[in-house]
Amino acid sequence: MSPITVAVDANGADLGPAEVAAGAAIAAANGTRVLLFGPAKEIGDVPDGVEVIDAPVSIAKAPDPANAVRSTPDASIVLAAKAVAAGRADALVSGGSTGAALAAGLFNIKRARGIHRPALALPMPVPGAPVLLLDVGANVEVRPEHLVQFAYMGAAFAQSVMGVTNPRVGLLSNGEEAGKGTPDVVAAHQRLSEAVGITFVGNVEGTGVTEGVADVVVMDGFTGNVTLKLMEGVSNKLMRSIRDVASQSPRGRVGGLLLRRPLSALRDNIDPEVQGGAYMLGLRRVGVVAHGRFTRRGFARAIEVAERAVREDVVTRTLTALDAAGALRQSPSDTPTSVQAP
Amino acid sequence: MSPITVAVDANGADLGPAEVAAGAAIAAANGTRVLLFGPAKEIGDVPDGVEVIDAPVSIAKAPDPANAVRSTPDASIVLAAKAVAAGRADALVSGGSTGAALAAGLFNIKRARGIHRPALALPMPVPGAPVLLLDVGANVEVRPEHLVQFAYMGAAFAQSVMGVTNPRVGLLSNGEEAGKGTPDVVAAHQRLSEAVGITFVGNVEGTGVTEGVADVVVMDGFTGNVTLKLMEGVSNKLMRSIRDVASQSPRGRVGGLLLRRPLSALRDNIDPEVQGGAYMLGLRRVGVVAHGRFTRRGFARAIEVAERAVREDVVTRTLTALDAAGALRQSPSDTPTSVQAP
Repeated sequence: MSPITVAVDANGADLGPAEVAAGAAIAAANGTRVLLFGPAKEIGDVPDGVEVIDAPVSIAKAPDPANAVRSTPDASIVLAAKAVAAGRADALVSGGSTGAALAAGLFNIKRARGIHRPALALPMPVPGAPVLLLDVGANVEVRPEHLVQFAYMGAAFAQSVMGVTNPRVGLLSNGEEAGKGTPDVVAAHQRLSEAVGITFVGNVEGTGVTEGVADVVVMDGFTGNVTLKLMEGVSNKLMRSIRDVASQSPRGRVGGLLLRRPLSALRDNIDPEVQGGAYMLGLRRVGVVAHGRFTRRGFARAIEVAERAVREDVVTRTLTALDAAGALRQSPSDTPTSVQAP
Repeated sequence: MSPITVAVDANGADLGPAEVAAGAAIAAANGTRVLLFGPAKEIGDVPDGVEVIDAPVSIAKAPDPANAVRSTPDASIVLAAKAVAAGRADALVSGGSTGAALAAGLFNIKRARGIHRPALALPMPVPGAPVLLLDVGANVEVRPEHLVQFAYMGAAFAQSVMGVTNPRVGLLSNGEEAGKGTPDVVAAHQRLSEAVGITFVGNVEGTGVTEGVADVVVMDGFTGNVTLKLMEGVSNKLMRSIRDVASQSPRGRVGGLLLRRPLSALRDNIDPEVQGGAYMLGLRRVGVVAHGRFTRRGFARAIEVAERAVREDVVTRTLTALDAAGALRQSPSDTPTSVQAP
């Protein structure tokens, strides 16, 4: 196998560029080439397989990411996206702002031909029932044809990267019946029921997201952002509440100690680092947005999944499936994507 | 204090009309008068304070609740709502379908003057940070002025029934900044920032819902339904996963045994029965929709909270606050509410 090259933005991570570089070093040791865009003097020495391109300018904290991308051509995320657009790298990984990564990807790597809107897809590590959610924040408003494309994009990703043979795709709604939801959701349900080359399991309610009834759940980016943050919030709150009630009695404290190892295994299991981040789907190349609070392990994982998506040719597979289903955009004059960070 | 009378629909509960009657009996023992609409022969004997009105016809499972309400004048929920409309009872409690209760309330008790849309409000028992969510399913689509009214309706309810002195009201969105969200959410944010007589704390993200940053969180009914079902789903899934990992080793099993009592206390604490159900706000009288799977304890609690809402005069307080803020509907020709069950 010829090596895959991943362009990585080292700016914006909570633990600093050196932590991203440490993740890049792990990925390089596993055979992936990394072009690392960030402040060379903070990054320091890197092993073979990692090439540092000095790019000290960061727009990871910019309040208007789309504007910052347009007005800052030497920002590290812009330079990384340009390297992918120019073919010097095969995929983009960002550890910074989601909005900046989306804008840089959209303006430089560009939408794949026939795609209405790129989407952010997030694999949720539900124990025993992993589920890919999209869109989790790229588009606050969508039309039915966007939701239909998200379904194909998610299915192709689940198949090639997550290894799900025949992904079941659901549509998030406020009831299982076909008529439930906003008019756009009802229209998307109708189209997906007739769609070819996809296993549509119908509407999925909020309770269904964690019940393993679908491998992919499709939604608009507003609801998707709320969904992932609710899941994170409820999960953290409940784990803290359990620790609190356990610490209130001697018996509880002993019980908590005995459960420490299994609970910590469960926590590792549902740790977002394991998934490597959120995936930008619908661009001409693969993009991954790692979470800013990741450690080197998470960044290494993000690079590894980007590499896998390239090797499995997710982009072509998605477009082939959409073409076969007649779901590619015909008119070139679609409304530009609103670039909104989750 | 003169006794409050609550009209209760006994049809539709999972455990049957007798269980609802048992809940009514508990409420009656505490001094509330109950008019119980349901099949007299299944209900059997009732104590003083409960009057059974034989109403064997149930529309709790009707696929189109609004239509069923219109075409079934002798349905128990319709008769119960009519009793409230006629002044024979002060509040409505239903243990059946939310959609049927909403339609029966809307068509018979009717919207309060100046209210655009009734909303369903649900107090979520987040440990240490209880929060009232609305709308959780009455209106899948809303306009900014509806969200503004929901804010006042929720604040008045939190103050009078939940006992929160100065409720902090937040707006669910995909980011904390004022510009985040759909155009309707952004417009609602703008209006709420300038609203008088309310403590608006700005946008609340999904993670914020469980963090105690607001006492009331306002949203459209589609997102609200997804939100409450996600919270329920994630919470149940995590509790099951903890039991599963604990049962996999002898140490874990002993730990689980020692934690049984605190975990069961936590579970009771977050049990939806404690809250009595969801509240229909914006009608001329108070309505409560208990969950179909409640036991007598939950139904008793629903009647008790309805009684409290009447005593605290939530309806008048809400309208007074809306009037002072200039947020009452002026035109009588607003689009009729879409009646959608959660």
